[in-house]
Amino acid sequence: MISTSDVEQAATRIGGRVRRTPVFTDDGVWFKLEQLQHTGSFKARGAFNRIIAAGELSAAGVVTASGGNAGLAVAYAAREFGVAARVYVPVNAPAVKVAKLRELGAAAELVGEKYADAYDAAVKDAADRGALFCHAYDQPEICAGQGTAGLELLEQTGGLDTILVAVGGGGLLAGIAAAVEGRARVVGVEPRTAPTLNAALAAGEPVPVEVSGVAADSLGASRLGDIAFAVATRTGAGSVLVDDAAIVEARAALWDRYRLALEPGGATAFAALLSGAYRPAPGERVAVLLCGANTDPATLTSPTAAPPAARTPR
Amino acid sequence: MISTSDVEQAATRIGGRVRRTPVFTDDGVWFKLEQLQHTGSFKARGAFNRIIAAGELSAAGVVTASGGNAGLAVAYAAREFGVAARVYVPVNAPAVKVAKLRELGAAAELVGEKYADAYDAAVKDAADRGALFCHAYDQPEICAGQGTAGLELLEQTGGLDTILVAVGGGGLLAGIAAAVEGRARVVGVEPRTAPTLNAALAAGEPVPVEVSGVAADSLGASRLGDIAFAVATRTGAGSVLVDDAAIVEARAALWDRYRLALEPGGATAFAALLSGAYRPAPGERVAVLLCGANTDPATLTSPTAAPPAARTPR
Ligand SMILES: Cc1ncc(COP(=O)(O)O)c(C=O)c1O
Ligand SMILES: Cc1ncc(COP(=O)(O)O)c(C=O)c1O
Repeated sequence: MISTSDVEQAATRIGGRVRRTPVFTDDGVWFKLEQLQHTGSFKARGAFNRIIAAGELSAAGVVTASGGNAGLAVAYAAREFGVAARVYVPVNAPAVKVAKLRELGAAAELVGEKYADAYDAAVKDAADRGALFCHAYDQPEICAGQGTAGLELLEQTGGLDTILVAVGGGGLLAGIAAAVEGRARVVGVEPRTAPTLNAALAAGEPVPVEVSGVAADSLGASRLGDIAFAVATRTGAGSVLVDDAAIVEARAALWDRYRLALEPGGATAFAALLSGAYRPAPGERVAVLLCGANTDPATLTSPTAAPPAARTPR
Repeated sequence: MISTSDVEQAATRIGGRVRRTPVFTDDGVWFKLEQLQHTGSFKARGAFNRIIAAGELSAAGVVTASGGNAGLAVAYAAREFGVAARVYVPVNAPAVKVAKLRELGAAAELVGEKYADAYDAAVKDAADRGALFCHAYDQPEICAGQGTAGLELLEQTGGLDTILVAVGGGGLLAGIAAAVEGRARVVGVEPRTAPTLNAALAAGEPVPVEVSGVAADSLGASRLGDIAFAVATRTGAGSVLVDDAAIVEARAALWDRYRLALEPGGATAFAALLSGAYRPAPGERVAVLLCGANTDPATLTSPTAAPPAARTPR
């Protein structure tokens, strides 16, 4: 469980390390351009907070499991502190992502057919070697770090009613909801094909879900995190589902209207507004967190050229 | 000639029509993300100011000559007011640009082998039919409109010493320099292969230059505008030249560091900083105006895939 003060402490900790990403407003909607963050997604916030909060690290450094943005962020943050990073990814991870991790100085370990295999290997390795394990979404410092984007958003906009946030494992949602608790409400947006929050709210606890679809490479966690569930129920954060077609359309619209490049998961929160899955009340002050752009830009201009569903959900 | 108050009047006129584009700061440098403007470049500012300042228009509407961003902006602004727009482009203009103009409801007229032929036809047509001619850069309302981005920049940053601005015909430079006159200085950045300002400053008046290179489709005016020359000399705006390779590198760096997509002309001001062609003094508060993103995003990730030099400089 995390609270506003955890996020405020995170903001103090990581202030000099992460970018205060810009906001802009159009047609009554605020957008936060978090894809301008180091390594192209908000994940750098949590990674820095986790690593700095841990204090002095052993020579084993940090370990994580991720074929996606969380891995990049941990690799980047570790490099900034001259700390060793080992990132476990499934054997079928795209070669370009593995290459990128190595470019950032991390050791990429290819283990297992599925994310769960890579995850288990990472946890065991961290325990064996006394390294700091960085979860992709379900650790207090990770969530609190992501939430710092929410504090900025309130400051930058002068106040909001609603913040739309994409959900995978829910670390981002948890952080933002805790950050703005009592001041704004948060709505989680999820692909209909990866509905971790929706399923957890329906079941009364996090449950495994089948994941697929265009945003599965970033929103493809197979179960909501416990912290996210606790914060979502405490703060009353709801879930809105969107079709893959709406995500593809949102991504195309962000390019067409604003020349902003987003990956499918990074455009998912906007899909809720554009498709009408979320309809603000008159006068409601709404913000959309654009959250990642680790994408092949060649796929931006043609909606049909959206990347295929990833085979390795994170 | 234009002054700060012309730009202030323009800001009042176009306020409800154009986007207040965001700024962000990294590594001590401010960036204004003007590529988020309507139609993907700052040109919408000048187009709106010219059209609104003209008051009631005849049924002939507006006419311009441009195969590029100026044409898109005029077509867009005219459509917003339900006014007819006719855009003259050389016969060898890329089909995709012509299609885009028509999508915006403009009549695209293909005339002549060179920009100068299209330009002459546009001026004659506007005179014959009593339409409002919109110059791509050398009219007071056009320059003053572009300058509104400079007023915003000063407000958004809380003060600057230097603003780096790409130069083609110099409408943008003239507007920004007039906007911030006495408060910040403006440095024009030009491709070595399209040095209109540099040549004009050297000759003591605007002179024709040969244009080519990766940014010629947006910065390929063949002579600096008279207004730009007058404002540049009055305000002491200098010129810095950059190689095509520096422009290509700046464009790749903006994607790599910030996931921002720019066309070559839109990244040219940053090229001066990145390449060291412009070196700020310690403590100097510098801003870079990122100014256009009408580009094929497929060319962003590979520096060698930068678009070829346009055959039809504007
Ligand atoms: C771009 C992007 N958006 C959203 C998410 C979802 O974050 P979380 O797993 O914290 O819900 C991720 C996670 O990787 C991501 O990369
Ligand atoms: C993206 C972009 N940058 C810069 C310029 C240069 O503007 P100006 O001709 O006013 O110097 C243009 C002109 O078309 C442009 O499209």
